[in-house]
Amino acid sequence: MKKRNILIVVMDGLGDRAVAQLGGMTPLQAASTPNLDWFARNGATGIVDVISPGVRPGSDTSHLAILGYDPYEVYTGRGPFEAAGVGLVGKKGDVAFRCNFATVDANMVVTDRRAGRIKEPDTGELVSVLRDIRIQGVEVIVKEATEHRAVLLLRGDGLSAAVSDVDPHDETKIHECRPLRPEATKTAEIVNDFVRRSYDSLNRHPVNRRREQSGLPPANILLPRGAGIFPDIVPFNERNGMRGAVVAGVSLIKGIARVCGLEVVEVKGATGGLDTDVNAKADAVLKLLRERDFVLLNVKATDIASHDGDASKKVKVIERLDGMMGRIREGMGGDVVVAIMADHCTPIELKDHSGDPVPLVVCCEGMVKDGGVAFDEASCAKGGLGRIRGKDVLPILIDKAGRSEKFGA
Amino acid sequence: MKKRNILIVVMDGLGDRAVAQLGGMTPLQAASTPNLDWFARNGATGIVDVISPGVRPGSDTSHLAILGYDPYEVYTGRGPFEAAGVGLVGKKGDVAFRCNFATVDANMVVTDRRAGRIKEPDTGELVSVLRDIRIQGVEVIVKEATEHRAVLLLRGDGLSAAVSDVDPHDETKIHECRPLRPEATKTAEIVNDFVRRSYDSLNRHPVNRRREQSGLPPANILLPRGAGIFPDIVPFNERNGMRGAVVAGVSLIKGIARVCGLEVVEVKGATGGLDTDVNAKADAVLKLLRERDFVLLNVKATDIASHDGDASKKVKVIERLDGMMGRIREGMGGDVVVAIMADHCTPIELKDHSGDPVPLVVCCEGMVKDGGVAFDEASCAKGGLGRIRGKDVLPILIDKAGRSEKFGA
Repeated sequence: MKKRNILIVVMDGLGDRAVAQLGGMTPLQAASTPNLDWFARNGATGIVDVISPGVRPGSDTSHLAILGYDPYEVYTGRGPFEAAGVGLVGKKGDVAFRCNFATVDANMVVTDRRAGRIKEPDTGELVSVLRDIRIQGVEVIVKEATEHRAVLLLRGDGLSAAVSDVDPHDETKIHECRPLRPEATKTAEIVNDFVRRSYDSLNRHPVNRRREQSGLPPANILLPRGAGIFPDIVPFNERNGMRGAVVAGVSLIKGIARVCGLEVVEVKGATGGLDTDVNAKADAVLKLLRERDFVLLNVKATDIASHDGDASKKVKVIERLDGMMGRIREGMGGDVVVAIMADHCTPIELKDHSGDPVPLVVCCEGMVKDGGVAFDEASCAKGGLGRIRGKDVLPILIDKAGRSEKFGA
Repeated sequence: MKKRNILIVVMDGLGDRAVAQLGGMTPLQAASTPNLDWFARNGATGIVDVISPGVRPGSDTSHLAILGYDPYEVYTGRGPFEAAGVGLVGKKGDVAFRCNFATVDANMVVTDRRAGRIKEPDTGELVSVLRDIRIQGVEVIVKEATEHRAVLLLRGDGLSAAVSDVDPHDETKIHECRPLRPEATKTAEIVNDFVRRSYDSLNRHPVNRRREQSGLPPANILLPRGAGIFPDIVPFNERNGMRGAVVAGVSLIKGIARVCGLEVVEVKGATGGLDTDVNAKADAVLKLLRERDFVLLNVKATDIASHDGDASKKVKVIERLDGMMGRIREGMGGDVVVAIMADHCTPIELKDHSGDPVPLVVCCEGMVKDGGVAFDEASCAKGGLGRIRGKDVLPILIDKAGRSEKFGA
């Protein structure tokens, strides 16, 4: 058999629960999805515990599982993936944090956790005074991220990610960074020193004087959280013998791709928002499928509508994504193994991720049809793929693509 | 409850994918299988990831899993099972290889990887000059196998199976055996020495002079491959408190049975080929079920038709095996726990094993019927047993047989 290429489409937060205002249907059941249903009729469906039953995945841990990694092995915190998302790809052992630019008073009480939703170019100008710092011999790298966010990366010997957040997640006094294990004492000291220095440098910074003159809160401190260590990870391409690429609008998914050694392909109009250009994404995927062995496409819009708790908006987004899948279906040719799934459910009821299993359809030549006629949570639960784990999805697709190794003889 | 006996019927390579020339059906869907369907109606069905989802099993690793062992613990390579297949059952720590009798020129370039498909009695006569060798204090045992094959067993201290193949698998210069881990250096040296000695002894052997006079290529070297170590395995009977037997035509399955301490019952007419006498196999199984607690029957013919890529032949073989199951059903009496399954799929499309799950039916008194009416890949995927792992099959059968231990009180 000729080796086939693989496409995984992740509709972020797609899965849901019964929604009263949709007459007890899920948004995916309520939406008109002729293209998704075509995949269900021509493929086989199932449901996936992306991590394990009842476990609520983040978009980071879930994508790691979908890419075939064990998140319990490679994930210690969100920091490294956020850092890689803005292009700061660390080395094994580097410790990274997400940070907020925030406003504090002289007593270190937070008065605005987002410093008036400051953004570039102010944030870029502010971090420039924090360049080329070393603390206790450790290299300290800061980079601005989207809006009021930044990332902090520590590089040196004897670092640990087992430290608590400085960000109090509320308008109260900032927390001291505490070691959660004895070996993290040095790291905690470095973080506390960094936070103090960020205040000293930023509080008197011309950008903040300008902001105060305009009645805006000064971004006079950086508050780290979500410490994680860059994992010792076998790159995706090496591990799977495929040349892979990822198309995603949101920074976090790009970061995950980069940490896994996958190429991130930027698509004009792919914003990671509700306004994302799904046709541009479809066309980028179709082009990549001719040049790469593996493509993962993430579309965030479903998750955004879910976090907003807006059922009818979620239905509309799903219908737009169905159109995108029609475009992909018509353009892709017959020799692709396609999987469509969610990374986690984000029920309208919760406005947050849940541990419910997500729907999955796998479609390619030679699939034994399972009689499924619709792609939704209930239909997929009756499908021929049964109930599987997130980390099992990629091996199944690799086998369908004629790319699996035999175990034994 | 009276303890019941257990029968597992493994139809080798039975599972398949949708085949275009069968109108998108699998061979098992296309075949007329009234007896297999009887088991489905009267039992419960499911699908099995014999190793784990998407992993392509060999017949060796899959049978180990079906016999309840973890192949990742006990399997290092095919050598030991091939050796045991021809009656050379090693002890824990012995290292065994499969070998080909091959033809090489004076530069050690392979000119015929099968030495003109040499077979017994020539092979038996040739190995006799390699008897009673010792290299570096290690006992070296060689035995002829089917056709152009032989097995090599090393017994002594400090051996390792982490060595590369000498057989280049192509008509090119033979490979040097290399240690894949530092502790395998001695083993690699012994293998290289053995290969040189095999050339020195065989090249001038009267059998080869005779072959050359008849225009046949001389079998002037033995090329080892597939090193594996005899595992430290708890014998099946001891582990499960049952007296078991295996009926199989092919040598490899007999070898697995012997390594697991199971009795291999030879059946006249059970060839391991397409011409195998399925009635003789059925009758042997029926006899054994009166005398043993556990019987595993392997029929290879389905896999052979699959490797040939011949869909209509596979359909016909399945219909013959259905007849065999009719004979077993009529003869076996009511008190047997029967499982029918494949060890792996061998899709016609691939002519090789795939990682697709295999169909399973379990039938005995007291089964909660799941409404299944057919035994095929799609129907079983909807069955009441769900999607399980290969190593879970035996514990389920042992429990149905009233032979399981309680965990807890």
